[in-house]
Amino acid sequence: MDESWKDVHGEATGSQIVSTLKAPLPEIGLSDLLPRLKDQGYDSERVARRRAWIEEKTGVSLHHIGAVSFDTEEVRGNIENPIGAAQVPMGVAGPVLVHGQYAKGLFYVPMATSEGALIRSYERGMVALTRAGGVQTAILADENQIVPTFFFPDIASAAAFSEWIPGQIDAIRAVAESTTRHGKLTGVKCYQVGRQVLVNFGYFTGDAQGMNMLVKATDAACQWIQKNYPISSYFVFSGMCSEKRPSGFLLTRGKGKRVTAGALLPHEVLKMYLHCTAEQLFQIWQSTVIGHLHANAIGYNAQYANGLTAIFIATGQDVANVVNASCGVTQFELQPEGLYVSLTLPALTVATVGGGAGLPTQREALSIMGCNGASKAKKFAEIVAAAVLGGEISMGAAITSGEFVAAHEHYGRNRPK
Amino acid sequence: MDESWKDVHGEATGSQIVSTLKAPLPEIGLSDLLPRLKDQGYDSERVARRRAWIEEKTGVSLHHIGAVSFDTEEVRGNIENPIGAAQVPMGVAGPVLVHGQYAKGLFYVPMATSEGALIRSYERGMVALTRAGGVQTAILADENQIVPTFFFPDIASAAAFSEWIPGQIDAIRAVAESTTRHGKLTGVKCYQVGRQVLVNFGYFTGDAQGMNMLVKATDAACQWIQKNYPISSYFVFSGMCSEKRPSGFLLTRGKGKRVTAGALLPHEVLKMYLHCTAEQLFQIWQSTVIGHLHANAIGYNAQYANGLTAIFIATGQDVANVVNASCGVTQFELQPEGLYVSLTLPALTVATVGGGAGLPTQREALSIMGCNGASKAKKFAEIVAAAVLGGEISMGAAITSGEFVAAHEHYGRNRPK
Amino acid sequence: MDESWKDVHGEATGSQIVSTLKAPLPEIGLSDLLPRLKDQGYDSERVARRRAWIEEKTGVSLHHIGAVSFDTEEVRGNIENPIGAAQVPMGVAGPVLVHGQYAKGLFYVPMATSEGALIRSYERGMVALTRAGGVQTAILADENQIVPTFFFPDIASAAAFSEWIPGQIDAIRAVAESTTRHGKLTGVKCYQVGRQVLVNFGYFTGDAQGMNMLVKATDAACQWIQKNYPISSYFVFSGMCSEKRPSGFLLTRGKGKRVTAGALLPHEVLKMYLHCTAEQLFQIWQSTVIGHLHANAIGYNAQYANGLTAIFIATGQDVANVVNASCGVTQFELQPEGLYVSLTLPALTVATVGGGAGLPTQREALSIMGCNGASKAKKFAEIVAAAVLGGEISMGAAITSGEFVAAHEHYGRNRPK
Amino acid sequence: MDESWKDVHGEATGSQIVSTLKAPLPEIGLSDLLPRLKDQGYDSERVARRRAWIEEKTGVSLHHIGAVSFDTEEVRGNIENPIGAAQVPMGVAGPVLVHGQYAKGLFYVPMATSEGALIRSYERGMVALTRAGGVQTAILADENQIVPTFFFPDIASAAAFSEWIPGQIDAIRAVAESTTRHGKLTGVKCYQVGRQVLVNFGYFTGDAQGMNMLVKATDAACQWIQKNYPISSYFVFSGMCSEKRPSGFLLTRGKGKRVTAGALLPHEVLKMYLHCTAEQLFQIWQSTVIGHLHANAIGYNAQYANGLTAIFIATGQDVANVVNASCGVTQFELQPEGLYVSLTLPALTVATVGGGAGLPTQREALSIMGCNGASKAKKFAEIVAAAVLGGEISMGAAITSGEFVAAHEHYGRNRPK
Repeated sequence: MDESWKDVHGEATGSQIVSTLKAPLPEIGLSDLLPRLKDQGYDSERVARRRAWIEEKTGVSLHHIGAVSFDTEEVRGNIENPIGAAQVPMGVAGPVLVHGQYAKGLFYVPMATSEGALIRSYERGMVALTRAGGVQTAILADENQIVPTFFFPDIASAAAFSEWIPGQIDAIRAVAESTTRHGKLTGVKCYQVGRQVLVNFGYFTGDAQGMNMLVKATDAACQWIQKNYPISSYFVFSGMCSEKRPSGFLLTRGKGKRVTAGALLPHEVLKMYLHCTAEQLFQIWQSTVIGHLHANAIGYNAQYANGLTAIFIATGQDVANVVNASCGVTQFELQPEGLYVSLTLPALTVATVGGGAGLPTQREALSIMGCNGASKAKKFAEIVAAAVLGGEISMGAAITSGEFVAAHEHYGRNRPK
Repeated sequence: MDESWKDVHGEATGSQIVSTLKAPLPEIGLSDLLPRLKDQGYDSERVARRRAWIEEKTGVSLHHIGAVSFDTEEVRGNIENPIGAAQVPMGVAGPVLVHGQYAKGLFYVPMATSEGALIRSYERGMVALTRAGGVQTAILADENQIVPTFFFPDIASAAAFSEWIPGQIDAIRAVAESTTRHGKLTGVKCYQVGRQVLVNFGYFTGDAQGMNMLVKATDAACQWIQKNYPISSYFVFSGMCSEKRPSGFLLTRGKGKRVTAGALLPHEVLKMYLHCTAEQLFQIWQSTVIGHLHANAIGYNAQYANGLTAIFIATGQDVANVVNASCGVTQFELQPEGLYVSLTLPALTVATVGGGAGLPTQREALSIMGCNGASKAKKFAEIVAAAVLGGEISMGAAITSGEFVAAHEHYGRNRPK
Repeated sequence: MDESWKDVHGEATGSQIVSTLKAPLPEIGLSDLLPRLKDQGYDSERVARRRAWIEEKTGVSLHHIGAVSFDTEEVRGNIENPIGAAQVPMGVAGPVLVHGQYAKGLFYVPMATSEGALIRSYERGMVALTRAGGVQTAILADENQIVPTFFFPDIASAAAFSEWIPGQIDAIRAVAESTTRHGKLTGVKCYQVGRQVLVNFGYFTGDAQGMNMLVKATDAACQWIQKNYPISSYFVFSGMCSEKRPSGFLLTRGKGKRVTAGALLPHEVLKMYLHCTAEQLFQIWQSTVIGHLHANAIGYNAQYANGLTAIFIATGQDVANVVNASCGVTQFELQPEGLYVSLTLPALTVATVGGGAGLPTQREALSIMGCNGASKAKKFAEIVAAAVLGGEISMGAAITSGEFVAAHEHYGRNRPK
Repeated sequence: MDESWKDVHGEATGSQIVSTLKAPLPEIGLSDLLPRLKDQGYDSERVARRRAWIEEKTGVSLHHIGAVSFDTEEVRGNIENPIGAAQVPMGVAGPVLVHGQYAKGLFYVPMATSEGALIRSYERGMVALTRAGGVQTAILADENQIVPTFFFPDIASAAAFSEWIPGQIDAIRAVAESTTRHGKLTGVKCYQVGRQVLVNFGYFTGDAQGMNMLVKATDAACQWIQKNYPISSYFVFSGMCSEKRPSGFLLTRGKGKRVTAGALLPHEVLKMYLHCTAEQLFQIWQSTVIGHLHANAIGYNAQYANGLTAIFIATGQDVANVVNASCGVTQFELQPEGLYVSLTLPALTVATVGGGAGLPTQREALSIMGCNGASKAKKFAEIVAAAVLGGEISMGAAITSGEFVAAHEHYGRNRPK
């Protein structure tokens, strides 16, 4: 038999563990553990065998989960213990006209979701933006970050380290960049908190999301530091990087692409496509800013997470990054000609290579926007920002015009029976 | 031809809009807008026609996106403008032993992701928890919320309204609950901010996530209020509910299930399965709490979003809710016998009916845990909390033992070429 | 000699301590410790002796610090180791016309500060509010809070406790209120976080700030709980009460008086007294809301802390409470007749009895507003809110009209030479 | 008569204003407005006249307020409409032994407060720190900040400005520094949010708090920018600087002195002076960190505001700055020899010249610590940090040992009668 247990289960068996504890442990035998299959079991036969094992254990048929259109070997490196795939309905919204630094033209945006009315909402907003003459976008920064932390016996030794680090930037860069072909160290900054020193490493990560790349590079740098300076110890993570976590720090420090998008919505476009006036849409903004402040929210937005999640699933992004990517600020400003609408996403960690970007359906989705592969991440970030802005104005308009409830009745009728 | 334009595009044509603006608008004709198909186009022939339209517009083959295993009519109510599905690799982690109020026994947890090493990390944590004797869980609250806001001409009239509302609870409840078979109004609470009054409506929403249900119920209640009290106007959303947005308010108010999970990890289990000591795992917690505080994060966690996202995609949750669900607190506490580990998720908005829960692959995934359909949402919430706790200890251990980089090298090798 | 050391210095002497440590400790002898004087040394002769001791130790003349106008015995209970008083310049701003629930009429507001232009800024705003017809105010809640925390061995036992507490409210109230003549328990609410349960105790504290009162009452309640339920242990503070600390929780939970104040500023008043238009003042608000969101600030305000601090010092409040009291929301709203301006202070912990409210200069300052003594705290809170609103509009106007720099040049010229 | 009205009251009289509003305005005549006296009325005779005016208006004797020991002309530039002074009781705590970069030796710390037990609490902590061998301190940064904001018609023009600014740093510095003898521009950093650009200006401000200095310098720089670049408009404040406001941004950006202080408390010192064990003190820290996280507090601390406020009042700081200065992180860490305690105050805006630092009692208080005048601000910041650390350990110990209630009963007995 081809099970290999050591990576997860160690050398122990259940009975060994039991004997070390007072309370009797549950009778979990080898037969309860997921089967370990040869070469990790990515070929279709072994994926099927694993699926059958689950079916037998739970008495559930997994017909649809097993119905994948691709060679299961392709998901090696993307998942462990594969049994098939979740099929998430995909639709298309748009077109949205983008006048960006990298994205220029009309784009159709694939979105994968199960929330009725979501795509209609985004589509309406994108078309309104397009009718208004399109969306300007700009990439304001492009730098992912990771923050290892170093420990010292006291304040003075930590302070000395904080002063030492800046002078070592060249050596640190050489070590860090030796581990990666794409990552470039953009800078380090020390934050001493008591006797630990959190060192913020910034990297340009090309078209990849880059966290694995920069963890590896930074760990190499940390080891170099450990050899060259008398630190007590270090951890490669301090929690400060806010990867997949909501934090105020993301707003100013950013993470991945910092991108902004804006458009002037003329009165006619507001009336015809969004069924409201500039004043009404502005009033909902002002009122809900107060609600956000009162809830102590991070930033302000209408529905970033809806659009980001649907695009992230469709295009193979690390969907958990929606948590950091959703920290941003939407702004509606009255002006004589209409309403100026904009958003700023300081932590948009998107990729066009690596991770799930190369999976079959996801690669196709990226291609719809001309964003598959190398040198496309900034273009993609601009399209995402423009699309998400569509959702901001559409949801605001739906609330102010009273159409929100009706739209969800109409499109989202898949309710419990 | 069967296009119907009015829902999104109104009665106008491109040329009409152009004439109302000074700057010449882009030449977007009818042929650039997504085709409107009969009955919204959910049958397989029209889904294919829409897909072909995109293929032609963009020159991209969408072979895999079109390869769905289910009847496309099933996604009506879940999505608009469907072209197929994203296939997100699904694997299984576990088993995790849960001693909950609703979940009792060993569970295998389906997770859909493209992030290599994620499932291995969760699996390791779940097995360690199981070896430790299992995870205790508890549902501390079960109440979703929505916060409409009412406007008044001045402070005094708003204050009078704040005093009037509590006496109307029975009437408000009757109106709100008349719109829903499952939603139950659990209470209202007024927050006056200047001359607007934000009224927090709490609802028990059964096994559904419930936002559509409670927007509809609350809008009915607001209309009743408008008829019975001289308000200036209202919006059904104030931004305070923090639906799909990160906020501090979520920690104390909660949203959906408030669930907690905890376990004592004996020294032997720590050593054998997590390759570290209680002291080491505790030290990483203490250090990274400082990093979270310093980043002004909401709560503290290692990787909630990873586990929540993977389970949410697999089981048809509204994945955008990961943003609110990721606001919580993980705690590691030293005690003589080992390390007590726990987490509290105050805003776990999960469902076993409605939304995407009934889609083919998602329904199967819920069934693996015995959580498909009615009366299963609390059980599901407890399993989710236990599984996510597995990820917390596993990631902590990987960092403290220095295995984090190696694990991602080993499992996550799908890097750009 | 009348020194008594035990309260601070224990029974040890410097040399005893030294012998227990490896590194030689500094040579700190009895002569370095502050003199302990008979009956704690509050009579004027002993206050002078202590002052002379400091003068001798440091070679500094403390002539002005010693020049107090009152009997030094009066500060017993307010301070330890007294040497005299800080004289903080006091001025008067106003008048501000208040239409409150408790405060009605024209008020002059004493403010103690050393920041040039501060009083002029508040005075201008108050006069503008008065010219506009006055400020409406309302007390929305009046409840201080403290949050002890209880520890349990696991999740399940903590959850059981959370369910037990609500049924004990009568017994808990009886015990808590037995310790105080003025405090009334208004409710308890459990927040379980892992295996600890934070129990939020709310109290009405009459005209006192009340923290000492409610710590004592709550400690008695905790001891009763400890006798009647198998808890592991408890602390009377959990950090959650946010006493003198900035937190988002303050916005929704409140602390002490929750008070709001608002006024409509007609166009003429804006022009004549604030030298700007409604649109200009609104624009600065909208712009700086973005700045606050971007800085992840708690709430939004222009200069709460300036006005609160100056009034708190003048009137003998616990000035450290400015930290919690400064968490609130200011709002400017355009309407045809002008600008509606308001603020909401959810955590205004002010008192008219107890603490420093009875000190000689402070008692006089409270009396200027008719707020000295019992049954005056709500009236005082309303006057404070109205006065602080004056500062909000005045600072906004100074920035928008470009007068800010000039005003500080004119009034705040006490710069380093 | 010597009143001059124009600065506050404009040219209008009450009756003129009344006629412009529908509702009749209150009958506020000239006699209700505070008297305007010659040369602003700082000489003792006019201060007395103003005080008498208030006494007559309100029927209150202001005997003690008028009892100042100094020449009232000295407060010109510190206050307007002076009527005397608030006498805030001042005591002394300490000694605290500091091993800093600028502060070295034993210090006695003057504190002005009306909160009984406060000084005793700080004294106990400082003595414990001294007995432990003293406190290490370090100044990690020294830079105040202000963030003007610039407006543009669209995203692209704002982005272009963001790129233009860095190249103008020399010109901007020359203009800004031309307005001040002490301020040095340390850098500028652009944060584009939609179509506005917030520009963070950092300054070294010498021994002054510096806000007036840097507002003036920055306004000059903004005017230069306006002349040299086509901006729409600007405001010198964006709200982002978090002056006197609580924000997460303060933690990473800092404001004024960023200072840290730490000490190792040996077991014997803990037992003898703080009456608790390292484990107990650590447990209260860990528990209350959870309470802070759960309340969404900024940072973590026990009672920063108490100590900061008392020192700020005593020494003539801008006391409203306590709001920003109270944002920081206290940490307790177990180690075999005892407990390592530290704090980090990233936004300690303290001064030894300017503002209230030169007032008679305040100057004396600064002199007690050898911190009066130029070149003393960093030394002073280190002493403040060390003193505040004393309060952190003392309060933690009081809670864990159950002495908190008893101490406040003993020392804080000035309750309502």
